[in-house]
Amino acid sequence: MAKLKVGMIGGGGPGAFFGMVHNRAISLDASRELVAGALRTNPRASLRAAKDYGIKGYPSYQALLDAVKSGEQELDYVTIVTPNFAHYEPARAFLQAGIPVLCEKPITLTVAEAQDLARIVKRKKVPFVLAHTYTGHPMMMLAKEMIAGGEIGEVRKVDSWYNQGWLATALEKAGQQQASWRTDPKRTGISNCGGDIGTHAFVAATWVTGLAVKKVSARLNTFVKGRVLDDDFNTIGELENGGTALITATQIAVGYRNDNGFRVFGTKGSIEWHQERAESLLVRHGDGRDVTYWTGAEFPLPASVASYLRVPSGHHEDFFPALANLHTTIERQIRKNRGEKGVLDAFPHPGVAEGVAGMKFVQAAVTSSKKKGAWTRV
Amino acid sequence: MAKLKVGMIGGGGPGAFFGMVHNRAISLDASRELVAGALRTNPRASLRAAKDYGIKGYPSYQALLDAVKSGEQELDYVTIVTPNFAHYEPARAFLQAGIPVLCEKPITLTVAEAQDLARIVKRKKVPFVLAHTYTGHPMMMLAKEMIAGGEIGEVRKVDSWYNQGWLATALEKAGQQQASWRTDPKRTGISNCGGDIGTHAFVAATWVTGLAVKKVSARLNTFVKGRVLDDDFNTIGELENGGTALITATQIAVGYRNDNGFRVFGTKGSIEWHQERAESLLVRHGDGRDVTYWTGAEFPLPASVASYLRVPSGHHEDFFPALANLHTTIERQIRKNRGEKGVLDAFPHPGVAEGVAGMKFVQAAVTSSKKKGAWTRV
Amino acid sequence: MAKLKVGMIGGGGPGAFFGMVHNRAISLDASRELVAGALRTNPRASLRAAKDYGIKGYPSYQALLDAVKSGEQELDYVTIVTPNFAHYEPARAFLQAGIPVLCEKPITLTVAEAQDLARIVKRKKVPFVLAHTYTGHPMMMLAKEMIAGGEIGEVRKVDSWYNQGWLATALEKAGQQQASWRTDPKRTGISNCGGDIGTHAFVAATWVTGLAVKKVSARLNTFVKGRVLDDDFNTIGELENGGTALITATQIAVGYRNDNGFRVFGTKGSIEWHQERAESLLVRHGDGRDVTYWTGAEFPLPASVASYLRVPSGHHEDFFPALANLHTTIERQIRKNRGEKGVLDAFPHPGVAEGVAGMKFVQAAVTSSKKKGAWTRV
Amino acid sequence: MAKLKVGMIGGGGPGAFFGMVHNRAISLDASRELVAGALRTNPRASLRAAKDYGIKGYPSYQALLDAVKSGEQELDYVTIVTPNFAHYEPARAFLQAGIPVLCEKPITLTVAEAQDLARIVKRKKVPFVLAHTYTGHPMMMLAKEMIAGGEIGEVRKVDSWYNQGWLATALEKAGQQQASWRTDPKRTGISNCGGDIGTHAFVAATWVTGLAVKKVSARLNTFVKGRVLDDDFNTIGELENGGTALITATQIAVGYRNDNGFRVFGTKGSIEWHQERAESLLVRHGDGRDVTYWTGAEFPLPASVASYLRVPSGHHEDFFPALANLHTTIERQIRKNRGEKGVLDAFPHPGVAEGVAGMKFVQAAVTSSKKKGAWTRV
Repeated sequence: MAKLKVGMIGGGGPGAFFGMVHNRAISLDASRELVAGALRTNPRASLRAAKDYGIKGYPSYQALLDAVKSGEQELDYVTIVTPNFAHYEPARAFLQAGIPVLCEKPITLTVAEAQDLARIVKRKKVPFVLAHTYTGHPMMMLAKEMIAGGEIGEVRKVDSWYNQGWLATALEKAGQQQASWRTDPKRTGISNCGGDIGTHAFVAATWVTGLAVKKVSARLNTFVKGRVLDDDFNTIGELENGGTALITATQIAVGYRNDNGFRVFGTKGSIEWHQERAESLLVRHGDGRDVTYWTGAEFPLPASVASYLRVPSGHHEDFFPALANLHTTIERQIRKNRGEKGVLDAFPHPGVAEGVAGMKFVQAAVTSSKKKGAWTRV
Repeated sequence: MAKLKVGMIGGGGPGAFFGMVHNRAISLDASRELVAGALRTNPRASLRAAKDYGIKGYPSYQALLDAVKSGEQELDYVTIVTPNFAHYEPARAFLQAGIPVLCEKPITLTVAEAQDLARIVKRKKVPFVLAHTYTGHPMMMLAKEMIAGGEIGEVRKVDSWYNQGWLATALEKAGQQQASWRTDPKRTGISNCGGDIGTHAFVAATWVTGLAVKKVSARLNTFVKGRVLDDDFNTIGELENGGTALITATQIAVGYRNDNGFRVFGTKGSIEWHQERAESLLVRHGDGRDVTYWTGAEFPLPASVASYLRVPSGHHEDFFPALANLHTTIERQIRKNRGEKGVLDAFPHPGVAEGVAGMKFVQAAVTSSKKKGAWTRV
Repeated sequence: MAKLKVGMIGGGGPGAFFGMVHNRAISLDASRELVAGALRTNPRASLRAAKDYGIKGYPSYQALLDAVKSGEQELDYVTIVTPNFAHYEPARAFLQAGIPVLCEKPITLTVAEAQDLARIVKRKKVPFVLAHTYTGHPMMMLAKEMIAGGEIGEVRKVDSWYNQGWLATALEKAGQQQASWRTDPKRTGISNCGGDIGTHAFVAATWVTGLAVKKVSARLNTFVKGRVLDDDFNTIGELENGGTALITATQIAVGYRNDNGFRVFGTKGSIEWHQERAESLLVRHGDGRDVTYWTGAEFPLPASVASYLRVPSGHHEDFFPALANLHTTIERQIRKNRGEKGVLDAFPHPGVAEGVAGMKFVQAAVTSSKKKGAWTRV
Repeated sequence: MAKLKVGMIGGGGPGAFFGMVHNRAISLDASRELVAGALRTNPRASLRAAKDYGIKGYPSYQALLDAVKSGEQELDYVTIVTPNFAHYEPARAFLQAGIPVLCEKPITLTVAEAQDLARIVKRKKVPFVLAHTYTGHPMMMLAKEMIAGGEIGEVRKVDSWYNQGWLATALEKAGQQQASWRTDPKRTGISNCGGDIGTHAFVAATWVTGLAVKKVSARLNTFVKGRVLDDDFNTIGELENGGTALITATQIAVGYRNDNGFRVFGTKGSIEWHQERAESLLVRHGDGRDVTYWTGAEFPLPASVASYLRVPSGHHEDFFPALANLHTTIERQIRKNRGEKGVLDAFPHPGVAEGVAGMKFVQAAVTSSKKKGAWTRV
């Protein structure tokens, strides 16, 4: 089985830690390798960064694409790790060339861009995975499987959240790069908190339950002076089955790191998960026995989940393996499409549909907040 | 120091477990004793129930009050543990007679009733404590003290919740008494979930922070068929300082028992508390060190809190001691008013002001929900 | 049903907090009341202390006993809360007079004394309960029931511990009363740490499993200078079925409060309990699903346990209710003996047998430690 | 900075999951790559396995070594992942050739072999790291740094443990490969449980505190019928400073996965760590405030630890990154030795000294157990 050859767009700047994170995720399995990249906007910097990575450098994503088209550069898929505003163009270009894309979230700057990508993916039938890393955690995958399997009956309510504290002060004025682009409307879009981490809570609420949010009432706040976009994001939504979704996020919760999680309440039971204790899943049926499931390859998890595990139980797979699982999913899709034999089924990780839905959700929330909480269709 | 003599209104019916709970809380300290009661509506049943309690029985609260007025029955205060609809009349009657009242929550059926009690309390200067039991937990008291003392800076956001699962099915149709009156508008008022447990989350948000909720956007749901009132209660509120309060409650979270708690996010730190692990309080300042405080008499808690503890650290005081602390508060107020010497300061536990605010909040939430989430003044 | 009248020996000194703890436990249920006491050694102080308690005072336990014998004082049982050295004489005197005794642990100063009490209890058939408070926690009772019922198969190993930090410094030299008598051989016996809290770990290992410890290898340490007795206690024991018991305790674990608990490993499963989270019990069967059981009256606990609960699930009963359960047990034994009808079955809480076994265990451990860890018969 | 080229001995058999684990750890950082290997005993199988890994295969470790010596194969260090009995020979051979070795634990089959390796390492001054993976967890490293820095005063007692349940039944008879060689004296040495996981608990007790165990009293059990070696391992040890070490391990704790951890009690504070929640460290000073430290690159950890982190706080680095940290340590040692510039300091992870100490400890425990717990010098 030949290694898949991966290219990277972005990820090479100082402080752009996600490039290296993806590199680790790509190479965590021996079946993939990062081979080429257009890692920075500045052509010369881009080549230099590639040298640091030990891969073939290109001055721009177009140059990389040209090399692939000309046959000069072998490439099985690209991963896009640029800031939000710079997802759309390279994603579109590679998808149109039929090259699969694993793209960082949120998918694009606008709903229209996201819909455009969705159209291309549909037309070209090319694999596209949206890097909601946490959906790669086996216990989050198990939650989705359980709910689909009826374990907790019909879903009545979802409570999903993401509490962070890193933007409780004006970090962007201190020159911190991650803070700078995330709080800048030009580079991040119409919402900072909602787009960056509200979308994680949104995916938890909708991808895990399989239910869309139909309308939403929202209150967005900007607590830190001088900031233009929201740093606090609160919504109450209506699910397509009439249920309720509380989807909230904040960046001003001092001392909270990545407190992301969800509770799903069904007619027959409840499921709870916390990203910061990603290795376990709590399931209750109201019989006084709370069951905790643990990740790990020894136990009888559904095959759809078990095939994504790398180590025996009791040894947690965490951040890198979760992201690696998304790369595994696009890898499986690619190999399946090629007709390779013995390829395991890919888990239905988020793709363009979830990307479009997330963009619409954030847009509806921004609109509702401006209209003093009026219910707004997503 | 003579024992305070306590009377009880309600609490004597089968399944009315709160009567015995208050009895335990009253007698947990040797300085108080339950001596008399009008424990049921039916006069004969009331006398019989009193006999079971081993106290002097009266056929009605009026009869008890008459006996007190005539000097026939010594009484220092009454505790009212009837269903919601039957709080107002006895509370008013005793307060008007100058007899202190410790009353179960929610304070009354309507805002007007609550305001009437507040006026009497103010005019008569008679002690009144509202039995939000959880506020008697030392760690919840510590949270209030810390925030008042500036430990976390200015409050930006509060997230308080109460998740239960016991009404996930139509328990009221199965003849369960607690479920019957709580889901009956005549006996419980305009809101079931909001009034019964939403008020706990409301008190957590406002009493702990010292901040009022000014306006609110709400979505109330009734998930169980045949039910008239809400069994799910979701609100986003604006605090008087411009901050945001998420105050939510549900009774359909299968397998959740009394998952009540709060997170308060300030400019300098955060505080988190969970009723089901009431003995600890989590404080963060964003420096990578999360501090857990534990209840217990050995440690340097503020004197205002320490004087409410009964056992050394490592031995949890829980439900009964928490409620006992509210009785301790009314006891201290009574003894202070009488000029007894050496009486410790009473902690500012909830009273009529919190009762009125809670009723207004629930009413505003019901209104907002009917108006599709429109922001409504509290 | 008439209230049982309870007398108390000891518990009246300043800092003798356990007297008030027992008073609270006695009066937590309306079926018992503390009525009389010989609360201190000094006769005058004893009478004064009784006045503070609001009960009938006696200058000595003999005077109380005489009053009972003469019919002058009604009394259903006594509770003994003196320091270790002063358990034996009053216990013997009351038992010989046929009066039931609930006695603080450890039962006596020596094995011989404990055996003497056991003989009297057997001959007189008089109820005797040993106040290992933690055995009153419903989840510890559930653990015992589960193991007896075969839930985890045959027991192979028990790991029980008790970590405290309060004696990490020479607190006894600072005049702290609890520390003074516990570190004084005359008042506490041949072992401080082993006798005081090692016996709790011993009871966890043996009472919960129903298995005796046959022999033991021990290492006792005295870490704080100037101290005569052990403040650290480590043993490896052999259970009667050939299994192994790790029974350890320490008082020098800085910052640990009452970290007492056990893990029992059987052929088919494991059970784990922690006193500081007394309300839950963790059961595992090796199938990847860890089950947490929670205390609370709503759930289908065995009747033997459920009849000891006072509040619905989600509201923890903790320290006072646990001790109250031991008073409930002696109350049930007394009422049963008298032929009262409708009395619920008493749970087999620790009594003289466990007291004798505990004393023998501590003695064997002290001997083994002196013999450099040689296996010593218990 | 050129990538270090790594070779692997063993790790290629079916079920030999540690080979792939090391491969992941090696490639987690872009500065190393697995390039060659003698992955199985059978030469043909070895070549085939290498093909699967996508690396240069050799029929035997000698062949690989010859290729390195002849200059045919570039190699910076080897990692040895064979079963216990097959560590010594390749380790010795490569070390004698001056090639650094990262070797799985336990270091060898016998004390003599371990001492021989120690002599060679000393003489040749060649880097050697012993793969006690858990020591690569940043919070375990932080514990070591804190204790060395005096944070908890002088160490009085250590309690370290490792509870597993996977060998609670005769898994080796069911053909499970990991179980087979671990329970076979020829391939695993004189102790199964002690050697395999007791050594982890031993390293936690000694490496973290910096204190040697001087003598030990032990009880080893074999609970599963037909098994020759221990599956349960209990010791009480004396530390070189007079303190006490409880070092225990078991493989029959049904449902326990990798419950490894330690508590260190010092004169001024205590430190507690659990492998299954590896991302946090609990520190107490007896002032009622328990401090939890969390891993993560944003917080002010000591530079010695911070330089081993890869992601921001709130995203856990777990199993793979922990092992990768040991590869980082040998990498830093190698680069330092070569005089490369800007190389960060290597953390003092376990090496030959810890390997020799561990072997002596297990041997002393086996001896003591046979002598009925007699104190035995390590």
